[in-house]
Amino acid sequence: MNTKMIRYILCRMLGVEAVLLMIPVIVAALYQEMSGIAFLIPAGILLLLFFLAGVKKPEQSHIYGKEGMVIVALAWILWSLFGAMPFTISGFIPNYMDAFFETVSGFTTTGSSILRDVEALPQCLLFWRSLTHWIGGMGVLVFVLVLISFDKKNSMYLMRAEVPGPEKDKLVPKAMSTARILYGMYLIMTVVEIIFLMLGGVNLFDSMIFSFGSAGTGGFSNYADSVAHFHSAYIDGVITTFCALFGVNFSLFYFMLLGDFKSVRKNEELRTYIMLIVGATALITLNIHSMFPSMIKAFRYAIFQVVTVITTTGYATTDFAKWPMFSKSILMMLTVVGACASSTGGGIKVSRLLVGIKCVKRESVQLAHPKSVGIIRIGGKKVGSDILRTIYIYFIAYVGILIVSVMLVSLDNFDFETTFSAVLTTLGNVGPGMAKVGPMGNFADFSILSKLVLCFDMLAGRLEIFPFLVLFTAPAWRRKF
Amino acid sequence: MNTKMIRYILCRMLGVEAVLLMIPVIVAALYQEMSGIAFLIPAGILLLLFFLAGVKKPEQSHIYGKEGMVIVALAWILWSLFGAMPFTISGFIPNYMDAFFETVSGFTTTGSSILRDVEALPQCLLFWRSLTHWIGGMGVLVFVLVLISFDKKNSMYLMRAEVPGPEKDKLVPKAMSTARILYGMYLIMTVVEIIFLMLGGVNLFDSMIFSFGSAGTGGFSNYADSVAHFHSAYIDGVITTFCALFGVNFSLFYFMLLGDFKSVRKNEELRTYIMLIVGATALITLNIHSMFPSMIKAFRYAIFQVVTVITTTGYATTDFAKWPMFSKSILMMLTVVGACASSTGGGIKVSRLLVGIKCVKRESVQLAHPKSVGIIRIGGKKVGSDILRTIYIYFIAYVGILIVSVMLVSLDNFDFETTFSAVLTTLGNVGPGMAKVGPMGNFADFSILSKLVLCFDMLAGRLEIFPFLVLFTAPAWRRKF
Repeated sequence: MNTKMIRYILCRMLGVEAVLLMIPVIVAALYQEMSGIAFLIPAGILLLLFFLAGVKKPEQSHIYGKEGMVIVALAWILWSLFGAMPFTISGFIPNYMDAFFETVSGFTTTGSSILRDVEALPQCLLFWRSLTHWIGGMGVLVFVLVLISFDKKNSMYLMRAEVPGPEKDKLVPKAMSTARILYGMYLIMTVVEIIFLMLGGVNLFDSMIFSFGSAGTGGFSNYADSVAHFHSAYIDGVITTFCALFGVNFSLFYFMLLGDFKSVRKNEELRTYIMLIVGATALITLNIHSMFPSMIKAFRYAIFQVVTVITTTGYATTDFAKWPMFSKSILMMLTVVGACASSTGGGIKVSRLLVGIKCVKRESVQLAHPKSVGIIRIGGKKVGSDILRTIYIYFIAYVGILIVSVMLVSLDNFDFETTFSAVLTTLGNVGPGMAKVGPMGNFADFSILSKLVLCFDMLAGRLEIFPFLVLFTAPAWRRKF
Repeated sequence: MNTKMIRYILCRMLGVEAVLLMIPVIVAALYQEMSGIAFLIPAGILLLLFFLAGVKKPEQSHIYGKEGMVIVALAWILWSLFGAMPFTISGFIPNYMDAFFETVSGFTTTGSSILRDVEALPQCLLFWRSLTHWIGGMGVLVFVLVLISFDKKNSMYLMRAEVPGPEKDKLVPKAMSTARILYGMYLIMTVVEIIFLMLGGVNLFDSMIFSFGSAGTGGFSNYADSVAHFHSAYIDGVITTFCALFGVNFSLFYFMLLGDFKSVRKNEELRTYIMLIVGATALITLNIHSMFPSMIKAFRYAIFQVVTVITTTGYATTDFAKWPMFSKSILMMLTVVGACASSTGGGIKVSRLLVGIKCVKRESVQLAHPKSVGIIRIGGKKVGSDILRTIYIYFIAYVGILIVSVMLVSLDNFDFETTFSAVLTTLGNVGPGMAKVGPMGNFADFSILSKLVLCFDMLAGRLEIFPFLVLFTAPAWRRKF
């Protein structure tokens, strides 16, 4: 393990966070808020760390896959540890554990909150909180890659560990330029959303908060009643549309830029994603229509909720925790599924669901016809046996983490729906769960142990487990290559 | 698909059920109950079917794996359909859907009940209900194999489809003689349990009911308060011990008979099974001790519950649905795990859990050291890649069935704990769940759709999914070999 290089890259990355922490200072200056000072202390520490160990490159500068995994896991933890400081220093989230939870929830684009009264926060803290969504959405490391140069191979290992989805190699080879193209599209789409929201009468600050939330598929808001604050079908529609778009594999947007619409039309994951949205919306609309004055109104709330949950954003326009159990269980199922690979959304990803279903199908055909050769194809392309194995292991680890987390969180002795949905929603990076952690509730009452477990779930969910497996595997540290 | 042979074997098997149905008629005669007549009608129909199509063997008598799967799936459904008739004909379970649910629950050794007042049933129906556990425990088909001869290869395919656990080939080659040895041990152990219970002052009838329930790891009882009826630490101890024994891989008993204690000591699955029981009991004892007058009493209830749940028996000595959430989530976790492979217990089996954990471990080592060669071993023996794949697919299908079932059952709009635990407990063949379907509750209030879904879950859980995959896969029927 090249620990010198790990330290170097991590400290470089922390330098970038120092710069990021200056943005809310500007916001504080504009709104004349004293809390802006709270950002200067962590920014100072981070700059110091950068100058101490992030300037001079070690001689042995090469890293491999395992270093990439370890760097990504540590980077997310460190960014969250430092990013949490302003909340505690300013006194608005006095408990540092709570501030850490809120920041992990921000960077992982989960959107679960421990705040009982979000509207009490000053604008600069609200802005920072939502900015973490935007940075985390595309990936903390991808963001750093855009700003700082590493050599090609190193960048590849970093991106491979962070970019979501089962098949990463398409995007990864030209890591640096890919990162810039991705971020370019991400930035443009976010700006377009801000403009659309402002056209609906939302002020610039709120437009930015909600655009950061939907672009990163995070879900933090600056109002207690989330998107319901605006009471506007137009705003609901804009946010639904943009959430849905940010849940699509970004390489498809790139294909569209190149005029390759055929690849987009033929994309099996996209088709399934759309079918899931349409199907779930239809079922929920039928299930909840008696709770609303008209079918159209029921449809409006249903499609908003389906899209924000499947994209793992987690905004709410109504208290869906009060919906019938059938609608709630559909939403929980979508929490597990999540969005498309290489999008900003979380969950196991639609493509892994597709592979899982096809594997079961193949097995039943092979049981009936032992001589048949079953090949799993997604969009006509064969899925290799290595990727299949990784997907299987990912499923097992996902369920394993789910079960162990539920057991640990159950020590708090909340009801089963609260316990189970809290784990499900953090592991899927959605945000709100059901019952006590529903869209109108919060995560404040959990014990420190549960909050730590849920922080782990958010990070493991966002980074798709494997970086943490490597981080926690003793042999990776003991043996040298 | 050799449909003639399928029909022939099925009708032969139904003939065996006709004979079985005469046993409760004898019980009815002894207790002078009129309900005994209710058994004669299905017995008559079954005999007729046997004489029509189960006597003359078709010329083309060979079957393959897929026919084995289809026969097993259909056999369990048909046995349940006919076995349910006496309940409805006698008028004690007037709704045939409920009677079918009760019989599926019996044969699959689940032990979930739709009866609101079990004590209202006559002795002959109670006896039949518990006898289905005993027959189903070792397998409907294995039972038939003991009585009726098929040629060697045919028997092999039948047993392979029915015997639980990931590796079947150890037991299967000499299907007929293996079946006889297994049943011999099963019978002797059941008789020993009956004797132990009678030594504790339980009458012969009750001893048989509870021995059938624990031998098959089923859980049906003839008292509303299950094992708590006896208020006896001795009885609790006997039932705990025998349940734990029936949850062990039966081939280990066979090794012990042969004096091969080394294989038993070295058995990794057995060690894990014991560790799970000890660990779960310790945690639950600590978690519930304040609810009981002494630590020892808490231990007695904890170990009883842990053993009956992990072996998927599901007897209760107290209303564990009122325990703290931590204890309940441990029990739910054990519901998923289940007992050892090739035992009478259900669940995913301890050996599959072991393989799952080892696969995740291997993957994290391989991520850190891409050149390392990871081989999965259980008890020193390599697990082949075909078996690994089957286990992966089994996990995926298990979770898939769980999710779809929860969604369908949630249409009844019960609370989440009821909905989720009802599916979990039927799929794991345990019996009681939590909340409304807890040990003091029942499954009567579910809709017909939910009952059908839960029946499917019990059958899929007991037969480990694959036979149903083949049954429901169109190509198996369409194409001829």
